[in-house]
Amino acid sequence: MPTFKTVGLITKPDDPQIRNTVRTLLAYLQGKRLDVLVDQSAANILQHTGLALHPRSEIAERCDVAIVVGGDGTLLYAARSLFNAQVPLIGVNRGRLGFLVDINPEEMISRLDEIFAGEFQEDHRLLFRGEVIRGDEVLATDHALNDIVVHVNEVVRMLEFDTFIDGRYLYKQRADGLIISTPTGSTAYALSGGGPILHPNLDAVSLVPICPHTLSNRPIVVNGRSVVEVIIGPHNPVPAMVSFDGQTNIELKPCDRIRITRARRTVRLLQPVDHNYFEILRAKLKWSEQP
Amino acid sequence: MPTFKTVGLITKPDDPQIRNTVRTLLAYLQGKRLDVLVDQSAANILQHTGLALHPRSEIAERCDVAIVVGGDGTLLYAARSLFNAQVPLIGVNRGRLGFLVDINPEEMISRLDEIFAGEFQEDHRLLFRGEVIRGDEVLATDHALNDIVVHVNEVVRMLEFDTFIDGRYLYKQRADGLIISTPTGSTAYALSGGGPILHPNLDAVSLVPICPHTLSNRPIVVNGRSVVEVIIGPHNPVPAMVSFDGQTNIELKPCDRIRITRARRTVRLLQPVDHNYFEILRAKLKWSEQP
Amino acid sequence: MPTFKTVGLITKPDDPQIRNTVRTLLAYLQGKRLDVLVDQSAANILQHTGLALHPRSEIAERCDVAIVVGGDGTLLYAARSLFNAQVPLIGVNRGRLGFLVDINPEEMISRLDEIFAGEFQEDHRLLFRGEVIRGDEVLATDHALNDIVVHVNEVVRMLEFDTFIDGRYLYKQRADGLIISTPTGSTAYALSGGGPILHPNLDAVSLVPICPHTLSNRPIVVNGRSVVEVIIGPHNPVPAMVSFDGQTNIELKPCDRIRITRARRTVRLLQPVDHNYFEILRAKLKWSEQP
Amino acid sequence: MPTFKTVGLITKPDDPQIRNTVRTLLAYLQGKRLDVLVDQSAANILQHTGLALHPRSEIAERCDVAIVVGGDGTLLYAARSLFNAQVPLIGVNRGRLGFLVDINPEEMISRLDEIFAGEFQEDHRLLFRGEVIRGDEVLATDHALNDIVVHVNEVVRMLEFDTFIDGRYLYKQRADGLIISTPTGSTAYALSGGGPILHPNLDAVSLVPICPHTLSNRPIVVNGRSVVEVIIGPHNPVPAMVSFDGQTNIELKPCDRIRITRARRTVRLLQPVDHNYFEILRAKLKWSEQP
Repeated sequence: MPTFKTVGLITKPDDPQIRNTVRTLLAYLQGKRLDVLVDQSAANILQHTGLALHPRSEIAERCDVAIVVGGDGTLLYAARSLFNAQVPLIGVNRGRLGFLVDINPEEMISRLDEIFAGEFQEDHRLLFRGEVIRGDEVLATDHALNDIVVHVNEVVRMLEFDTFIDGRYLYKQRADGLIISTPTGSTAYALSGGGPILHPNLDAVSLVPICPHTLSNRPIVVNGRSVVEVIIGPHNPVPAMVSFDGQTNIELKPCDRIRITRARRTVRLLQPVDHNYFEILRAKLKWSEQP
Repeated sequence: MPTFKTVGLITKPDDPQIRNTVRTLLAYLQGKRLDVLVDQSAANILQHTGLALHPRSEIAERCDVAIVVGGDGTLLYAARSLFNAQVPLIGVNRGRLGFLVDINPEEMISRLDEIFAGEFQEDHRLLFRGEVIRGDEVLATDHALNDIVVHVNEVVRMLEFDTFIDGRYLYKQRADGLIISTPTGSTAYALSGGGPILHPNLDAVSLVPICPHTLSNRPIVVNGRSVVEVIIGPHNPVPAMVSFDGQTNIELKPCDRIRITRARRTVRLLQPVDHNYFEILRAKLKWSEQP
Repeated sequence: MPTFKTVGLITKPDDPQIRNTVRTLLAYLQGKRLDVLVDQSAANILQHTGLALHPRSEIAERCDVAIVVGGDGTLLYAARSLFNAQVPLIGVNRGRLGFLVDINPEEMISRLDEIFAGEFQEDHRLLFRGEVIRGDEVLATDHALNDIVVHVNEVVRMLEFDTFIDGRYLYKQRADGLIISTPTGSTAYALSGGGPILHPNLDAVSLVPICPHTLSNRPIVVNGRSVVEVIIGPHNPVPAMVSFDGQTNIELKPCDRIRITRARRTVRLLQPVDHNYFEILRAKLKWSEQP
Repeated sequence: MPTFKTVGLITKPDDPQIRNTVRTLLAYLQGKRLDVLVDQSAANILQHTGLALHPRSEIAERCDVAIVVGGDGTLLYAARSLFNAQVPLIGVNRGRLGFLVDINPEEMISRLDEIFAGEFQEDHRLLFRGEVIRGDEVLATDHALNDIVVHVNEVVRMLEFDTFIDGRYLYKQRADGLIISTPTGSTAYALSGGGPILHPNLDAVSLVPICPHTLSNRPIVVNGRSVVEVIIGPHNPVPAMVSFDGQTNIELKPCDRIRITRARRTVRLLQPVDHNYFEILRAKLKWSEQP
């Protein structure tokens, strides 16, 4: 059983409504005599408390676990910066939906008691590594836990692009864009675009076109080990973007390539032992709710 | 039976590939001793020919009919500028799909012979009038033959808006946007967004959300006489746009209202007598094609 | 303003749970000194009360209005038997969903007080007339307020059929079946099959294929004045059925034709003045509900 | 490299159009001095040839490989009867679509030359084992390479059932049925029902409801190691069936359980080395074809 001695504390920045949750949490952790490293994201929320703040890189280096207070966006950002150091994450939900941050503030203390007593399940989530390539040069490399989205950057314009899987031609599309989603991201933007729900323990990648011009398109799910490449059409007249988890956006030019593989490391999520994925689907998506 | 004495000629601008079609057409019309007014859109295509060019307003005022050479976009633009003067339109397809411009260049002369001999069907197409309202002020008024689209103006961000039909609350949505489509537009962007095909003789309006956040949404079709209002959410954090036929775009702010009604006049389309809408669906959309 | 002197009372048969509602209703109507004709459908529910029962034909002939207690199925059946005599219908919901029977038992007395005082809105609903034709012979003629469904009569088999609109070829399909739906039926089976919601005041017909074999199919909505014909394929190997509102089923053979037109008369529905269609959509379908 | 000495020959029964293909194939195999065991399915096609016919069990026991001439249905049936003996299958397409039987008759000889020379790829396809359980008794056990479908056995009636994954409650549904599909079956009935395409090398199971009553349903894909259980509702009023690959049908009663797991063995498919799954998708489904 792991022992968590040094705990990172990461919060949604600039949201005064979560201040009480964060203070309760801090008091709880200090009461347990744990070494708490507060992330710089909490700067505004914890100002005037005199607490030292630590850069994300130090959280990554020193912490045995990080607690994230906020919404899925906060956790996505934490995951992207901490997965490489393999710091496990615990999510406390102060956002709206919260698929990833599944501990509610009311039950926070009892849930953390369980987790610090070693009663938890560890979920390993597939994460994408994406490269943006122009000619022979890699312009940018980034990671995404939910999705990498290629999208037109203007309203009501259509993007033309080709997609390849493991070097094999998949299709040419004219569409608003393409969502390349992990199982984790299958309940996020990919679901809005008409994609299937993928259980998080699948080793799979979902490709969901956004408003495709052709009637005969359908989402396809391929193996998680696949290399997915999207190439912007050479005559594509409209500005395009690639977005990593909706957080990092990079402008694209005609002939740019986005090359997506599974990252070598996964995101480690710690969850209460009675965590039930299907219950979360039903509760948060009103999935299959009977009228 | 109408007689067409003065004919407007409108073309897709800057497309040298249509030059031959336009010249053949000009020669044909002049040979018939018709009075031809060439629209300024043909400036580049017909340069060095010494032909006089006429502003759109003059086409609207003087012509008995206008022939549009280009794609659906060219015809949409012509329709929006000429419907008020009730100039009927004939479309010659030099674009890609061409639902509205359904005469192919190869058959152009024989088709026009028929139409000028009075053998045609006239289609009256519902057109939207849309007002963009900020506070008490009408910021802009424009028309659309295909669709009016409210859309986020940035990748992977969600718009929040309320929709009302005839003053009655329809729904609150979080989505990439909303397509309000005429029957004519139902085979365009609305179809990519998952909307139904509406026969052009229906007096109806289709509302198709783009990537809606809620699973339970479905397109709804309401009466063509309905007043549709979309109100941008007061806390909407992202820049939004409204687009008329994808040609005129206006930036929106929180609380802006878009008010859409049927225009009092329709667009008049002249088509060969054997024009067959279902055949066009099958041919151009590969609709229901058997594998 | 109409005066309702003779009132028909129609109930879901054999459902003891609605007995109290029916008795309360009877006492109310008798207290108002109205002439009440109890339909034979109430035989079991009102047995031992000594009340005279009347055949549906007499209800049709003599009643100024009919009150239907049950679910949508009960009202569909009443509508199909009474529309020809143009008896208006009031629906009291003792079923599950109740789009058509929209008065709840708790508010029944006050709602009826309003309606009998002349405060109501009258809705005219399009109804289908369907003929089943074999060779030159009309095998059967029936009506449907929701939908006429052509369907295979065995699991996991595919039906082959051609569809024509106003004599024009629409498409050949291989599918589990085809739903031809009125606007009223658009929130019933057609919605489950992926069809759009059509506002009940539209004069329109929706064609929704069930599990079509081709990827490129989409629902199409055509004018309510259209003649829709479905012809079972000549080599169709599997038994097929046509169903009127899911209540009357007729077996089909290869080459049988189903010919569907709008009935010359409509179904008259009386509804409280504050009846709100969109609210019913949101409440009963959880339509567009925010997670 | 395996050597194929004894070759089974299985055909679509009773289809005289495939006679020439089968005779060409037989002559080819005999010319290669292979030991050919002709399956009883070819009885009609090869009558009057005096060839000995062998029961499927003997094909299973003695053959090193089996060549299947027909459509996907013929191959599905062969796969279900031969997978247990692990006889690899080669499919020659004489059906309509042919996802599984991907060698065309025109190229049959050269393709078989390659395969018998050891140039082929071997695909291992996940197969379901399904048990139908009533009370404590297992009524039936069967296998399916495409899908196991639970379905109402009458037109326009709704089935009520609960679904569990690994003993965890997934959802209660009211629908026409539920398709539980392998990756192989994802391009068959599950696709018609709106399910995603799953690459055949995925270890996954897709659950696709047929015409679900609730708007908020979506297909879900779970791990191939999952145990899927469907339980017919106790008050379900309509006759229901379970179908294995559309070939074996078993009637269901209220409370019956269908328990589905991955079979311990897979189906072995031999394919030409240049077999390209995405090309088959594009060619056979007109997938993503540009209008």
